[in-house]
Amino acid sequence: MYAVIFSARMSADLEGYGEAVEEMRKLVAMLPGFLEMESVTDAEGNEVTISYWRDLDAIAEWRHDARHREVQAQSGRWYLDYRIRIAKVERDSGAGKIGG
Amino acid sequence: MYAVIFSARMSADLEGYGEAVEEMRKLVAMLPGFLEMESVTDAEGNEVTISYWRDLDAIAEWRHDARHREVQAQSGRWYLDYRIRIAKVERDSGAGKIGG
Repeated sequence: MYAVIFSARMSADLEGYGEAVEEMRKLVAMLPGFLEMESVTDAEGNEVTISYWRDLDAIAEWRHDARHREVQAQSGRWYLDYRIRIAKVERDSGAGKIGG
Repeated sequence: MYAVIFSARMSADLEGYGEAVEEMRKLVAMLPGFLEMESVTDAEGNEVTISYWRDLDAIAEWRHDARHREVQAQSGRWYLDYRIRIAKVERDSGAGKIGG
């Protein structure tokens, strides 16, 4: 399993952002290699979104999705800056029900 | 570089939580294998905290820290549930200044 860790600071211009997030969530959920996603944004506009994927091929498929690329191309105004890390999950544990 | 991804839902009982977070942040920053940390909590009490480490040995050192273990032992009341994933960062990119 791989994690795509997206960290960002949001800008003040969020026109169209909510709709785009909704649309991307629906698209991503249809990809067979997509496992789950968690996203947290605080009151200061700091966002961390982690999506989990079966393998790197699944991530590549999403990266090349045409509609995803269109949205990405206009996403710059929503973020002051961002960072993306791709990491291979080696251990997974918890006392909880998060993510099943 | 390794990422420790901590996802949690916070409970209503946060007595002592803020002080513990502050203390743990100071402790962790003194460990030579610690690189950086990002933590976001939203209005609904969903928290994602990701810490980045040089290697698995550095993570093990932190896990075995005596004061850390004491705080962990009482942390159950602060969380409804949590999940910890350890992942090896394979790619790191971004347009931003987050984390330097």
